[in-house]
Amino acid sequence: MNLQRRYSSTEKKPVSPVPVSAPQYVIEDVYPVINGGRFPAKRIAGEAVGVWADIFRDGTEVTLASLVWRREGGAASQSTPMLHHENDRWHGRFVPPEPGRYSFHIEAWSDPFATWQRDLRRRIEAGQDVSVELDEGRLMLAEAGVRPPEQDAPDAWLAPELGEAMQRAQPRGNLVTSPVFPLMVERVRARAGAWYEIMARSQGQVPGRSATFDDCIARLPDIAAMGFDVLYLLPIHPIGRTARKGRNNSLTSEPGDPGSPYAIGSAEGGHDAIHPELGTLDDFRRLVSACREHGMEVALDFAVQCSPDHPWLREHPEWFRHRPDGSIRYAENPPKKYEDIVNVDFHCKDAAGLWMALRDIVLFWVRQGVRIFRVDNPHTKPFPFWEWMIAEVQREDPGVIFLSEAFTRPKVMKALAKFGFSQSYTYFTWRTHKAELSEYISELTSFPTREFFRPNFFVTTPDILPWHLQGGEPWAFKARFALAATLSSTYGIYNGFELLEHEPIPGKEEYLNSEKYEYRTRDWNRPGNIKPFIARLNRIRRENPALLQTNNLRLAQVDHDRVMGFVKDSVDGSNAVAVAISVEGSEPKEFWFHFGGIDIGPVGNRKPVTAIENLVTGARHTLEWGGIRLRIDPTDDPMLIFRCLS
Amino acid sequence: MNLQRRYSSTEKKPVSPVPVSAPQYVIEDVYPVINGGRFPAKRIAGEAVGVWADIFRDGTEVTLASLVWRREGGAASQSTPMLHHENDRWHGRFVPPEPGRYSFHIEAWSDPFATWQRDLRRRIEAGQDVSVELDEGRLMLAEAGVRPPEQDAPDAWLAPELGEAMQRAQPRGNLVTSPVFPLMVERVRARAGAWYEIMARSQGQVPGRSATFDDCIARLPDIAAMGFDVLYLLPIHPIGRTARKGRNNSLTSEPGDPGSPYAIGSAEGGHDAIHPELGTLDDFRRLVSACREHGMEVALDFAVQCSPDHPWLREHPEWFRHRPDGSIRYAENPPKKYEDIVNVDFHCKDAAGLWMALRDIVLFWVRQGVRIFRVDNPHTKPFPFWEWMIAEVQREDPGVIFLSEAFTRPKVMKALAKFGFSQSYTYFTWRTHKAELSEYISELTSFPTREFFRPNFFVTTPDILPWHLQGGEPWAFKARFALAATLSSTYGIYNGFELLEHEPIPGKEEYLNSEKYEYRTRDWNRPGNIKPFIARLNRIRRENPALLQTNNLRLAQVDHDRVMGFVKDSVDGSNAVAVAISVEGSEPKEFWFHFGGIDIGPVGNRKPVTAIENLVTGARHTLEWGGIRLRIDPTDDPMLIFRCLS
Repeated sequence: MNLQRRYSSTEKKPVSPVPVSAPQYVIEDVYPVINGGRFPAKRIAGEAVGVWADIFRDGTEVTLASLVWRREGGAASQSTPMLHHENDRWHGRFVPPEPGRYSFHIEAWSDPFATWQRDLRRRIEAGQDVSVELDEGRLMLAEAGVRPPEQDAPDAWLAPELGEAMQRAQPRGNLVTSPVFPLMVERVRARAGAWYEIMARSQGQVPGRSATFDDCIARLPDIAAMGFDVLYLLPIHPIGRTARKGRNNSLTSEPGDPGSPYAIGSAEGGHDAIHPELGTLDDFRRLVSACREHGMEVALDFAVQCSPDHPWLREHPEWFRHRPDGSIRYAENPPKKYEDIVNVDFHCKDAAGLWMALRDIVLFWVRQGVRIFRVDNPHTKPFPFWEWMIAEVQREDPGVIFLSEAFTRPKVMKALAKFGFSQSYTYFTWRTHKAELSEYISELTSFPTREFFRPNFFVTTPDILPWHLQGGEPWAFKARFALAATLSSTYGIYNGFELLEHEPIPGKEEYLNSEKYEYRTRDWNRPGNIKPFIARLNRIRRENPALLQTNNLRLAQVDHDRVMGFVKDSVDGSNAVAVAISVEGSEPKEFWFHFGGIDIGPVGNRKPVTAIENLVTGARHTLEWGGIRLRIDPTDDPMLIFRCLS
Repeated sequence: MNLQRRYSSTEKKPVSPVPVSAPQYVIEDVYPVINGGRFPAKRIAGEAVGVWADIFRDGTEVTLASLVWRREGGAASQSTPMLHHENDRWHGRFVPPEPGRYSFHIEAWSDPFATWQRDLRRRIEAGQDVSVELDEGRLMLAEAGVRPPEQDAPDAWLAPELGEAMQRAQPRGNLVTSPVFPLMVERVRARAGAWYEIMARSQGQVPGRSATFDDCIARLPDIAAMGFDVLYLLPIHPIGRTARKGRNNSLTSEPGDPGSPYAIGSAEGGHDAIHPELGTLDDFRRLVSACREHGMEVALDFAVQCSPDHPWLREHPEWFRHRPDGSIRYAENPPKKYEDIVNVDFHCKDAAGLWMALRDIVLFWVRQGVRIFRVDNPHTKPFPFWEWMIAEVQREDPGVIFLSEAFTRPKVMKALAKFGFSQSYTYFTWRTHKAELSEYISELTSFPTREFFRPNFFVTTPDILPWHLQGGEPWAFKARFALAATLSSTYGIYNGFELLEHEPIPGKEEYLNSEKYEYRTRDWNRPGNIKPFIARLNRIRRENPALLQTNNLRLAQVDHDRVMGFVKDSVDGSNAVAVAISVEGSEPKEFWFHFGGIDIGPVGNRKPVTAIENLVTGARHTLEWGGIRLRIDPTDDPMLIFRCLS
């Protein structure tokens, strides 16, 4: 920095150094950036990452800009030009080839020769004498070692080739580099998937006895035929005996009660062991392989909690906090108590050892072929643990996906997504009115939430049988399924949903006789099941890539307050789907579905929807007045789903 | 950081250190913050600064938070508690007592004893045995050196006093500190003022001769009577002779032509000299004092450009870029040329000397009592120069205000405000339709623009006589004045506006026979002038603090597409004003002014408007159906202005 001065009228020294070399460029409002770059935006490998930024400087110099990106731990960085879009907003894009952590930044600089060429053109067009300008141009070329044009006609000096040669030869004037922004790139399953949640021990046919992994394998053809992608298993580890819960979560268990699978750990082992009743590690690996053969993959539950019989209490007493009376407090959320569980102390003296042990549990299962983990209650464990652990695991296998099961305050749920969870449970399970569903899906698909929070819409869970399904009406189950599977590209059902299981503990949103506390068998083909409905919609999802995105949703105007309508189109513009769903009530509904304002097709060639084709019946309808009159009889089918034509 | 580990099942070292002590708090979405803290938000001394942030952590610990602030170069920092508002959003406020640069940050931490108290209360309410809990409480008190309650009854342990004692005694658990954010605090004139722009040499009564500062002093009672706060003088420095411009910007001047005041510098001196025809430095200081006596202050033009006769060309040839033929390029924006001006080279070898010299010019005038500078064309000079220069000057006198005269691309104009300009010229001068005026004022009063960009609405300037005023209709002049003076708390007129001067160079938005290029005299009381209208509205502004804010504007629904309606209320809620203006056309207009949804009054006690009182006639009207039917006849008065009552 040049601090020399000759002006001496006041002899006042500057308080701050004179920043004569400070950057003249402003690079701001960069997209996609979360919390100023503290957290990564999330993208999918093989899909283009569009980057936008305001780039400008004082004065009138010609500006050039580059988007520079690299994979963490990967090859050298790559660079691609950014182009001016409008109003000082610039755009560039790159395609991350494989999952991993990436970073990008922006470089902007001035091109003095291009500026000179632009001004020369204006002078020539205004008929001005440009002889001194040409002398200046000659000097610039000489300085950069570029050969001047052979002809001295002004036009020769305007040649684009000359400009390009100078772009390469000139130093980049006023070069400014933006901060480096992180990006988390995952495999396609992080974006789209249909989850089927099971309790492994309930997959058999012998009452009062645990099923085995082989029983699970026998169930796969049926589950795959329904069109699911992910088989999610509740914890499969040995279950403690101390304070074991009885049926319906009672404090005392009867002999033969199997206990809650969340009371992890017994003499038979802890988080890296398998409940002996289910089989061996080899049996589990066979299940993983069998799933793969059926086009599915296994997701495991990761619940950081221990039964009082977990080996860690003996091997690592220092990982637990002892109370003044020498006891370890069981898990609780005062006044609620979980007597069969104790929690580790994430800030014990050997915290580092504990955190690594927890990471190693995940890595252990990754080595058994598991690449999806549903994490139980992550909001009660330190944010920094998740950020560190997920990054460690994804360094070993960037394809590992973590689903956050945090039903808590909205900002805490979003923070977990920022700290690294690929997907998140949502409030969808309890949203039933058109207005609240519309508001919620709008929030999830708006900036900035859509950049880091990927919803996974579960219709039910082992813990939640919502009020609106306790009547057991088929149209209600179908409507909730249709909403989950079309609003969100990732969704899940808990087994039994397809059988319309709906008996609650009276007055609670919980299942009566939950398989969490007892052995269960089911007739998986019980009359009245909605498996064909599920299979058909999962098939439609696979055939229509528009449904395998969430952020492309646009709500349509439907003039009925119990019918939700929306349009999704695929990123490449090749596919668009319109959906209308009766969200409440069994009464038939007639309504006008307005397409006004919704264009479809590839960017740069988007057109209004002109006709739709029913994806179930194949019937075609031409739109009139920008919309169409439709009728839903929920007792028949609460959903209409169409391919859009333009 | 504890990196010790005992778990050895995999012996895999962590790729990243285990962050067992990393912050568990998230502090995000802090308000007011510009560009993540790169630039200061702007506030006014003596007015409360409200700070908002999302603050939360994992788990269920009780959280406390503080807002910590200090004045740069001032006393030690001060701290004030932040309170939880809702949904993990927290709020705190402080009042910066005087102008200057401030900074603030947020601290958040957990209170283990408050957490223990909260849980104890829940346990007691649930009828649980709490003896072990009380032992834990005793341990916490002992560790913090706080005396336990004398009675052992559980209630004694819930006493707020005990919690407060522990708050003071306990270390702050999990303390997290946000980044430090800057704040630029200015005096009230930065927020509100009525500017009157003059060419000093035209303030006299002798045709063909320059007026003097004494002539200006003689004009002050008239200007003050119109209610202006700021007397803004076009450049008052010696004017060059080389390439002097003639009348109407002609390339050749006639003998006796005074030249453009922007061709600064001659043998008589440069930017720190006064044109001899205007008077001496003492005369100037007398003008500054006389303004003060009339409740006004002087603003000077700061134009970083030189006539070819400026002393710097001789004393500091190194500050100018010489062309291959030895000449210095005159100012231009190809193909436009400014033959009577040359520009300094901000990146010359002695850039630091030049930048300091420019700063010293401003400081020179500050020492003569000038505390407002209107800066000519700042967007063609380096952003870092402005940021540095303004900070340097405001360190010497934090009351100095800089107005950016940048009519350029929107993001560049906003960037200049971010880099430190207190106020900015705007596009208001050309916005004439209700829809575009509404859109523009909405943009200016929305986050984030409102936090750093303070508009100064000029109806005309010496360079701009917009089309819509070239007809000279009094209603048009009044409407534009009313819009400027009520939409924006800071606005200005260029002298002659009050006389309805409107003769253009045909086909251009420029004044014919502009005083920029010739001596001018005027009849300041010319019949048909709108001085009473101006004086009345400036009086209403002073009497109604709601009009001395810009960001408090809420557009009202007015069912006439040429009438704009809005409501402003003062920050303390003590004053609210409703305005309706006919923005175009002389035809009478009847319309319904809807107040629906606009509440007024102090925060926490806001109520709907129920009646309005005409601030000109005193007439009172009670609202019906949430609004009122009004009539404007622009040829009489294009504005209706009311005090709102609730």
